[in-house]
Amino acid sequence: MGVEVVTFGETMIRLSAPDFNRLEQANSFEVFVGGSESNVAVCVQRLGIDTAFVTRLTDNPLGRMVENKIREHGVDTSDIVWTDEDRVGKYFLEYGANPRPSSVIYDRSNSAISKAKKGVFDWKEVFAGGDKTLFHTSGITPALSKSASEVTKEAMKAAKDAGLLVSVDLNYRSKLWSQEEAKEVMTELMEYTDILITTEEDTERVFDITGEDYSEVAEQLAREFKFDVVAITLRDNVSMWRNDWAAIAYSEGEVYKDMTYELELVDRVGGGDSFTGGFLYGYLASDGDVQQGVEYGNASSSVKQTNPGDMSWASLEEVESLIEGGGRVRISR
Amino acid sequence: MGVEVVTFGETMIRLSAPDFNRLEQANSFEVFVGGSESNVAVCVQRLGIDTAFVTRLTDNPLGRMVENKIREHGVDTSDIVWTDEDRVGKYFLEYGANPRPSSVIYDRSNSAISKAKKGVFDWKEVFAGGDKTLFHTSGITPALSKSASEVTKEAMKAAKDAGLLVSVDLNYRSKLWSQEEAKEVMTELMEYTDILITTEEDTERVFDITGEDYSEVAEQLAREFKFDVVAITLRDNVSMWRNDWAAIAYSEGEVYKDMTYELELVDRVGGGDSFTGGFLYGYLASDGDVQQGVEYGNASSSVKQTNPGDMSWASLEEVESLIEGGGRVRISR
Amino acid sequence: MGVEVVTFGETMIRLSAPDFNRLEQANSFEVFVGGSESNVAVCVQRLGIDTAFVTRLTDNPLGRMVENKIREHGVDTSDIVWTDEDRVGKYFLEYGANPRPSSVIYDRSNSAISKAKKGVFDWKEVFAGGDKTLFHTSGITPALSKSASEVTKEAMKAAKDAGLLVSVDLNYRSKLWSQEEAKEVMTELMEYTDILITTEEDTERVFDITGEDYSEVAEQLAREFKFDVVAITLRDNVSMWRNDWAAIAYSEGEVYKDMTYELELVDRVGGGDSFTGGFLYGYLASDGDVQQGVEYGNASSSVKQTNPGDMSWASLEEVESLIEGGGRVRISR
Amino acid sequence: MGVEVVTFGETMIRLSAPDFNRLEQANSFEVFVGGSESNVAVCVQRLGIDTAFVTRLTDNPLGRMVENKIREHGVDTSDIVWTDEDRVGKYFLEYGANPRPSSVIYDRSNSAISKAKKGVFDWKEVFAGGDKTLFHTSGITPALSKSASEVTKEAMKAAKDAGLLVSVDLNYRSKLWSQEEAKEVMTELMEYTDILITTEEDTERVFDITGEDYSEVAEQLAREFKFDVVAITLRDNVSMWRNDWAAIAYSEGEVYKDMTYELELVDRVGGGDSFTGGFLYGYLASDGDVQQGVEYGNASSSVKQTNPGDMSWASLEEVESLIEGGGRVRISR
Amino acid sequence: MGVEVVTFGETMIRLSAPDFNRLEQANSFEVFVGGSESNVAVCVQRLGIDTAFVTRLTDNPLGRMVENKIREHGVDTSDIVWTDEDRVGKYFLEYGANPRPSSVIYDRSNSAISKAKKGVFDWKEVFAGGDKTLFHTSGITPALSKSASEVTKEAMKAAKDAGLLVSVDLNYRSKLWSQEEAKEVMTELMEYTDILITTEEDTERVFDITGEDYSEVAEQLAREFKFDVVAITLRDNVSMWRNDWAAIAYSEGEVYKDMTYELELVDRVGGGDSFTGGFLYGYLASDGDVQQGVEYGNASSSVKQTNPGDMSWASLEEVESLIEGGGRVRISR
Amino acid sequence: MGVEVVTFGETMIRLSAPDFNRLEQANSFEVFVGGSESNVAVCVQRLGIDTAFVTRLTDNPLGRMVENKIREHGVDTSDIVWTDEDRVGKYFLEYGANPRPSSVIYDRSNSAISKAKKGVFDWKEVFAGGDKTLFHTSGITPALSKSASEVTKEAMKAAKDAGLLVSVDLNYRSKLWSQEEAKEVMTELMEYTDILITTEEDTERVFDITGEDYSEVAEQLAREFKFDVVAITLRDNVSMWRNDWAAIAYSEGEVYKDMTYELELVDRVGGGDSFTGGFLYGYLASDGDVQQGVEYGNASSSVKQTNPGDMSWASLEEVESLIEGGGRVRISR
Repeated sequence: MGVEVVTFGETMIRLSAPDFNRLEQANSFEVFVGGSESNVAVCVQRLGIDTAFVTRLTDNPLGRMVENKIREHGVDTSDIVWTDEDRVGKYFLEYGANPRPSSVIYDRSNSAISKAKKGVFDWKEVFAGGDKTLFHTSGITPALSKSASEVTKEAMKAAKDAGLLVSVDLNYRSKLWSQEEAKEVMTELMEYTDILITTEEDTERVFDITGEDYSEVAEQLAREFKFDVVAITLRDNVSMWRNDWAAIAYSEGEVYKDMTYELELVDRVGGGDSFTGGFLYGYLASDGDVQQGVEYGNASSSVKQTNPGDMSWASLEEVESLIEGGGRVRISR
Repeated sequence: MGVEVVTFGETMIRLSAPDFNRLEQANSFEVFVGGSESNVAVCVQRLGIDTAFVTRLTDNPLGRMVENKIREHGVDTSDIVWTDEDRVGKYFLEYGANPRPSSVIYDRSNSAISKAKKGVFDWKEVFAGGDKTLFHTSGITPALSKSASEVTKEAMKAAKDAGLLVSVDLNYRSKLWSQEEAKEVMTELMEYTDILITTEEDTERVFDITGEDYSEVAEQLAREFKFDVVAITLRDNVSMWRNDWAAIAYSEGEVYKDMTYELELVDRVGGGDSFTGGFLYGYLASDGDVQQGVEYGNASSSVKQTNPGDMSWASLEEVESLIEGGGRVRISR
Repeated sequence: MGVEVVTFGETMIRLSAPDFNRLEQANSFEVFVGGSESNVAVCVQRLGIDTAFVTRLTDNPLGRMVENKIREHGVDTSDIVWTDEDRVGKYFLEYGANPRPSSVIYDRSNSAISKAKKGVFDWKEVFAGGDKTLFHTSGITPALSKSASEVTKEAMKAAKDAGLLVSVDLNYRSKLWSQEEAKEVMTELMEYTDILITTEEDTERVFDITGEDYSEVAEQLAREFKFDVVAITLRDNVSMWRNDWAAIAYSEGEVYKDMTYELELVDRVGGGDSFTGGFLYGYLASDGDVQQGVEYGNASSSVKQTNPGDMSWASLEEVESLIEGGGRVRISR
Repeated sequence: MGVEVVTFGETMIRLSAPDFNRLEQANSFEVFVGGSESNVAVCVQRLGIDTAFVTRLTDNPLGRMVENKIREHGVDTSDIVWTDEDRVGKYFLEYGANPRPSSVIYDRSNSAISKAKKGVFDWKEVFAGGDKTLFHTSGITPALSKSASEVTKEAMKAAKDAGLLVSVDLNYRSKLWSQEEAKEVMTELMEYTDILITTEEDTERVFDITGEDYSEVAEQLAREFKFDVVAITLRDNVSMWRNDWAAIAYSEGEVYKDMTYELELVDRVGGGDSFTGGFLYGYLASDGDVQQGVEYGNASSSVKQTNPGDMSWASLEEVESLIEGGGRVRISR
Repeated sequence: MGVEVVTFGETMIRLSAPDFNRLEQANSFEVFVGGSESNVAVCVQRLGIDTAFVTRLTDNPLGRMVENKIREHGVDTSDIVWTDEDRVGKYFLEYGANPRPSSVIYDRSNSAISKAKKGVFDWKEVFAGGDKTLFHTSGITPALSKSASEVTKEAMKAAKDAGLLVSVDLNYRSKLWSQEEAKEVMTELMEYTDILITTEEDTERVFDITGEDYSEVAEQLAREFKFDVVAITLRDNVSMWRNDWAAIAYSEGEVYKDMTYELELVDRVGGGDSFTGGFLYGYLASDGDVQQGVEYGNASSSVKQTNPGDMSWASLEEVESLIEGGGRVRISR
Repeated sequence: MGVEVVTFGETMIRLSAPDFNRLEQANSFEVFVGGSESNVAVCVQRLGIDTAFVTRLTDNPLGRMVENKIREHGVDTSDIVWTDEDRVGKYFLEYGANPRPSSVIYDRSNSAISKAKKGVFDWKEVFAGGDKTLFHTSGITPALSKSASEVTKEAMKAAKDAGLLVSVDLNYRSKLWSQEEAKEVMTELMEYTDILITTEEDTERVFDITGEDYSEVAEQLAREFKFDVVAITLRDNVSMWRNDWAAIAYSEGEVYKDMTYELELVDRVGGGDSFTGGFLYGYLASDGDVQQGVEYGNASSSVKQTNPGDMSWASLEEVESLIEGGGRVRISR
């Protein structure tokens, strides 16, 4: 029962204005730690598969806080590379209310991970041990910098060499790079990718692929890049406090569907990552049952979006009872 | 204008995770005090009928906090029995958001009241004085322990002997006892009960009584146990933040109905108790007008569910203007 | 680029119970500063037209806080008159949840501005400088006291003499004066008024004017008082957390309409003032385009109602992108 | 075991800036309730003698909060007179740190109690019942207004007529009246006074009485006004966070002394009142042992000054173990 | 670099009243996690030696929080035994201010660890692996219950059998057992103990051993029980906010001393545990240099007592720079 | 009465861990805004001389917050240059307790001001208008970057050309540049400097100048660089919560001294800046009375160090009554 899943990327200190205050008017910020790939790691770990997270961090209280909050959930952080240089990325979050959307200010430039160069991580060592099954990263990591992009590719290659599955969340961030840059880099990385998780919108922005509906988009993606599985999530912003959440997956000619969850939104950030975490757990724990992946992904994501912070605090029991109850659970006392 | 209503049961320190944090992630807990029977006492007292609450408490700052927060509203606490033994019960509350339900962790075992034995309370003295009109307890109190069950029966008998009306909220708690245990004990206690407040669900779980609709359930209960009045509340969980609230009562062949309130839910806990409090006030203040009981109960409950904490902070004026306005009131300035 | 808009009235310290606590149960109050006319000033200033606010304040930390929080947004406060006498007005706010409405306790009697007498302000000096374009006040200011009423008239006259446009928000406050008093005073002040902002309800309460719909009411007002523009706002209280917001304007025979905004309400107080601020900005910045006034007013008000506090924290960019997006904006990252 | 001690005066909502923030910079205020005479009542009640507090309050959530927070400790509030007029007094507190002193802004003008007129309270009824032993008020109450001064005299006379002891805390407040006014009124009231609690400084400011040390001052006071007992407290402001506290009493030719407490100051406000409360308890519970009064007064005051808020939260056990330990107690676990 | 140090005991949810509020008056509690043996584990781990903590916990959000907060610092928690029975222990903390001491209410009865029985832990497995060097527990663990006492002995024996050093913090808790019980049980456990950490006071209470000074006490202990090392800590309560901290150790005829630290106390709880943690780190990292143990212990403890919570957040760098600076460090910027 | 004093430098968002939490353990951060030169501006403005602050800021909510919090005090911010590029500097503050010092993490690299280039500011315009008397900056500004250093020199030259006095706080920051770099740049800038404020330590680190006592150091500095006035501040860290504060000045052969203030430290950061602000006010308001400068500087600094945040909230009245009272003021009520 060693580590099975390894994720890699940037984790930031997140500072959110409480009680729907605008960032500009805040007198205090709530402190969280979040980043797409560590959010996935935390989610997978909590559901029951041992997971490690790899990044590069500045060795100061803020860097240590990042590690702390990830290993608080049991994720293995022993392959994190520490430096006295650079800085810990931050982002500021303002919660929305209709018609004002949630908004984010990134303050992640020159972070330690964006400065990482090829060779900084000993990927062979990271993927060693025989228990490793899957490597996950997202389209944010290569977008951080040229060198981060190279390191991402290096990692994916090493994972493939070590016989791992590779999953990627496309996660296009327009504040980090252009669609052209994304297309070039991500297309190359898709070569090493077995499982892609994305949205219709990102697919269009990065790969110019569109379709009638999201099944079709998934199918096109799978065909073009020869993925084992493509999962596509769909968030419908009914309002800022009410979203509908759904996802489908496509694998080897088949489309896998699930119910739509009606969410009362406490914190949407990390919702996609907790889908990914739930999906990977469901898929791996069942030895490749895509339907189970979708169902665990949706339930996991739905629960996560009801608590503050990027990370899931859901338990396996909670996720499974939500699936069984068709999305409804009662107060028990 | 001495004390007219006496309630009896357990009151706990309640610790709630703020701002929709999961209990597991909380860095602070909001402190409240709550328990079904003292919630009823506070509600009745605030509306204008003098009330006393009886329990057994450990004499330490937490026990004193329980007493303080009840008498803050004017409830008479002079018959509370104090001990240096045992502990003060606690419970932990996590507020829900769709599809995650609110949830409760009870930590009430071995509390001072659950350890109370027959003879600890001088019921004759408690019910003396001539002003006492009604004794209220709930199905939680006998569920706490064998001895608490005996004390409950002792109290109800004494109340009847002293010529008081006895009302009971059935309040089945599956975490405290089984349906079989509940059925046995509660059936016996119904002998001393004049007014029963309950839900369809609890009726089925405890007495195996079901019906077409809740009027029929009320009627069956009244017939079987010869109650003066049966009130049945109905909560419809539209979502975690939106509930519909309604209640009816049955008395001597007649069904009493009222409007349905559309609630924006701040805190559902104690909503049933504030129905009971409002019902008892309305019923007693009108010398037995059941319709008024139902209306005051519903309005009282609806207001309570919009503030944090188990207890009602509604005023009589507020409840009455809500009834008059058919459930709508405007900001006045 | 000197000050173009001058507003005049009372600003109070506002104390709100956090987290939907009832005022009676609060253990802390959030501190804000608010008043109809300074709310307007802040809104206009933030959108890009230099603004000054005039009032009379007691020179103590609370009075200084009032000035601070207004000039925090860049509003010129150099014409505020300071005194060692009297007090700083306060009000207490309780946020509502269905069916409990938000409620306000005013504690503003004997405030420094209500004690101001004619001659205390040097209006000639206030309106000097050539850049001044518009003077704004509301029906609250004359309602504060007899002398405040006289000072209001004095100010309006001086503004007209200095060649400024005068706008008034009718803002009837039943806790400050009767409808009869309001009618008498406001009728007289309408003589100096070019732009009136109000609601159907206030129009009826103060001027006994009603109509088929709010276009008709606006038209009647304009005809009777010879206003350049009348704007009428309409709030539909779907629930305490969901309001619909709309407004129209009437000018020289034409009715100007806009979309209806579906608001998730964080704080409704100041919503009207941020309509006024947005309207005045849109109208003045376009040299009198009433349609633009209505659109900027609605967008400005809608954003403001999603943050705590009386004051708008919206930027011009935000307001304009809301108008362009037809009321919808997405999280960008 | 009916009410033995009755106190009378004004209780305010107190708003304190947290964490040593200046009032002018505060974003929230902590909410407490305090007033010299109710602070005394709470302290006496907590130590074990039943007590009632009499005042006049505006019937709104803030007025009810005042009553709630007093009866939270068990004080009888049934003789409070309620009105829909006037307002609830407030004060704002800023905690000091060397060399910046703590400071207070009173906002109590036109409060309901300051507007009380003779005849508003039924003193005969208040003092009826046979258990009443002592009436307490302070020099703040008559300073509130001319009519409050008359009511104070009315109350003291009625107390004497009913055979009660009367105690007064001289409590000179320069923000409420001049030394001349105070001298005139207080001299008259001393006629009905049996026990005076004061400081050297107030004695000089109100009565022009000075002495070599505080024993001498006490003796002069006792001689001039024929008091049974005079107690004088002495606070030495070592710094804002460290005070020394001591007190003596004089009675029938004898001086009663006690140790000096070295206080780590959390909140000095109400320190004198908790001396008075402890003194009255010690004195009454021992049937007039002045030495015990001084010791209980000092210990009670010392404990109170270590918690936020005007009111004492000390228990009798705590006070007595402090007296026994000579001012030192250890963490027990 | 596997786990070298294993600690075993009870960890509780700790609820502290903020801002020097009395427990009885608190409106919220700060949530921490603490227990003597996990405090030691966290401290050792942070300084750089890999550590595991063993306990038995109830599987609910509170139990998971206990695990989370320990592994947040990197401590291995994989040998924790989970149960659906029993409860998670709690304690309530009130911070003191002169002359009011800090105080604690334990609410730990029937906790999962107190219910643990022999055989529940697989000690052979726990101590396997070859890296394990030292086992640590305290006198609290056997005091929890008869069965906990048996399990403690079982663990110590197994540790000795596996060739580990065994260290014990005597930690007498009068609220858990009598001096007689403690003496009997602890005397037996001393047989397996190599390193004892204690105070003069506990030595006297448990073993009736006293001496001229604490060197002598240490020597007597070492002689009587044949310890390798005895460390004795001395806290001088100058006041509640100012303590002096010192410790010495005795080993094989030699006394090891260090400077006295003048502490500004933020939170004294866990101060002894962070001495133990620092001592064990210093001692083990230097392969048995007792002087280094004492110095690291004192510096570690001193830093810990300046932050809220039971646990140390000190880094090795911080501890070492404090030792080098002779107890003084400057703000660097 | 136009702007007389202009200051120039970097202002950051400051995030402080509350309640003595370590940065690594914080769950929320208090938000302040601070920077040496704007702290000076705020202090001078509050005391009564109109002041402007110049910097370059990124145009987002965090940049606007910086401007807001400065103009909240009335400082003119109209010459701030805005950009869509770069970032807003931040710093993290941990409050100390003996023996743990306060500590700071700077996160200011690549801030908008550090990226400013010559020509970005129109210094002629900034210093125009005839009221400008003094320009102030600190040794932090040129340390930010090469280009910031050039801009600083540009500004100082322009100030001299415009006939202004120039004052500089030497403020050496070892985290920003080496002593060698500082010496080279600062020596050059001293040519344009009339008033230098510094410490003995910084004088030694930057200029290698030492002396018997701080009078001698001041004299040497004045002689070497031909300053009109040199002021030297001395902080004695009695402990983290108790500092002694003193300062002297030297001017034209004369040494000006003042009392030593015993501070209870709430927040030391900005203490030097509020000395500078007080000094400049006292010096300018008296047309060059250096003694008054020192006294106002010390009192201003002392008050500031008792409130959280970098900025002074002192009033002129407060500062003057502290000077008159020889450092002691009483609570007045």
